[in-house]
Amino acid sequence: MKIDIIENVLKYNKSHAEKNRKLFEENNVMVLNLLSSPGAGKTSLIIETLKRLDGKRNIGVIEGDISSTYDAKKIQKFIPDVVQINTGGTCHLNATMISSAVKKLMIKNLDILIIENVGNLICPVGFDLGEDYKIVVSSVNEGDDKPVKYPPAFVKGDLILLNKIDLLDISDFNIDFFGRKIKKLNPDSEIVKISCKTGNGLDRWISWIEKAVSFKCNK
Amino acid sequence: MKIDIIENVLKYNKSHAEKNRKLFEENNVMVLNLLSSPGAGKTSLIIETLKRLDGKRNIGVIEGDISSTYDAKKIQKFIPDVVQINTGGTCHLNATMISSAVKKLMIKNLDILIIENVGNLICPVGFDLGEDYKIVVSSVNEGDDKPVKYPPAFVKGDLILLNKIDLLDISDFNIDFFGRKIKKLNPDSEIVKISCKTGNGLDRWISWIEKAVSFKCNK
Repeated sequence: MKIDIIENVLKYNKSHAEKNRKLFEENNVMVLNLLSSPGAGKTSLIIETLKRLDGKRNIGVIEGDISSTYDAKKIQKFIPDVVQINTGGTCHLNATMISSAVKKLMIKNLDILIIENVGNLICPVGFDLGEDYKIVVSSVNEGDDKPVKYPPAFVKGDLILLNKIDLLDISDFNIDFFGRKIKKLNPDSEIVKISCKTGNGLDRWISWIEKAVSFKCNK
Repeated sequence: MKIDIIENVLKYNKSHAEKNRKLFEENNVMVLNLLSSPGAGKTSLIIETLKRLDGKRNIGVIEGDISSTYDAKKIQKFIPDVVQINTGGTCHLNATMISSAVKKLMIKNLDILIIENVGNLICPVGFDLGEDYKIVVSSVNEGDDKPVKYPPAFVKGDLILLNKIDLLDISDFNIDFFGRKIKKLNPDSEIVKISCKTGNGLDRWISWIEKAVSFKCNK
């Protein structure tokens, strides 16, 4: 038995992503799509961001996981506008999932929407969600060879956050090698070193966000 | 334009996996399929295993990555029988890739074949390669919530290796929580705590392998 599928899943996704992008434009919302391996620190990054922008910017969050509401519950302690997407096994979010989730948010009131993609350094890369920027979160303990072994994520990332730099002293992570390999793949990318544990570097990340919001929304 | 695909990719894969399994049986080779997130330490684990079984067991390794020969080159310093599979973007190995790779190995001479799957805690889980055991490598720095957020890997894992336990003292990883969640998903699973950096726990892992080889091959 055979079934038909639409040939170009990505083309189909793209058309939905464009609809999302238009909606975000109309509502003046700057949208970030966070990509990383499992456990690189996306949820911690969101929490630290919410703390630092509390009272300054209205932020909504969409959490993507194959199952559980574990991360959404953590985020809900800080803001009301959280939606959890459970993909049921699929290894990435897609634009249709986002357009459904957005309906549950007070999109008109938001300045920033942060989408935490499924923890996976491969599958989410090719799926445009309608975001303004793809943020790749890599962490020291994953090793400095990630750009060599998972190039597409680093090619597509508008900003690379190197998290858990508090572990640099006790690891053999070669920060020059990591930076060089990324620059080769993506000469325009910016790399910001952070630690969500110590707060180190998060001021630079917050400045980056503020600049992106101003650029997008003139708010 | 539409294209036809075989409905049950997994069924197609399964039939190839069974062929691989038969070949491994005939050649008395015990086969491990290593699954983990990127950077959890699969390659380091293989290297430490090769060092400890050097001169005792003949080991072959198949390295799976979306691109690069980075890991295979590391392994080649220890043994000649290494094959690199580049999936070209696909987020997991499948049984057909393995049957091609095995042709390049001296399978008759091997006691153990270790397959390092693509670094991904989701996609490789459903694809039987013909292995005897699925080994899930989780690492302390990824956080204790991995079984909650990526249950299928832990359900399917015959053995769970918790790597990087040298970082336990400086993290908030709750080892009881981690163990409890795994036992709930997979009551028969065994969890072995290791550090490829300090060597801690690797004797238990080597004993586990030796037992598995004896059980399979009566060698």
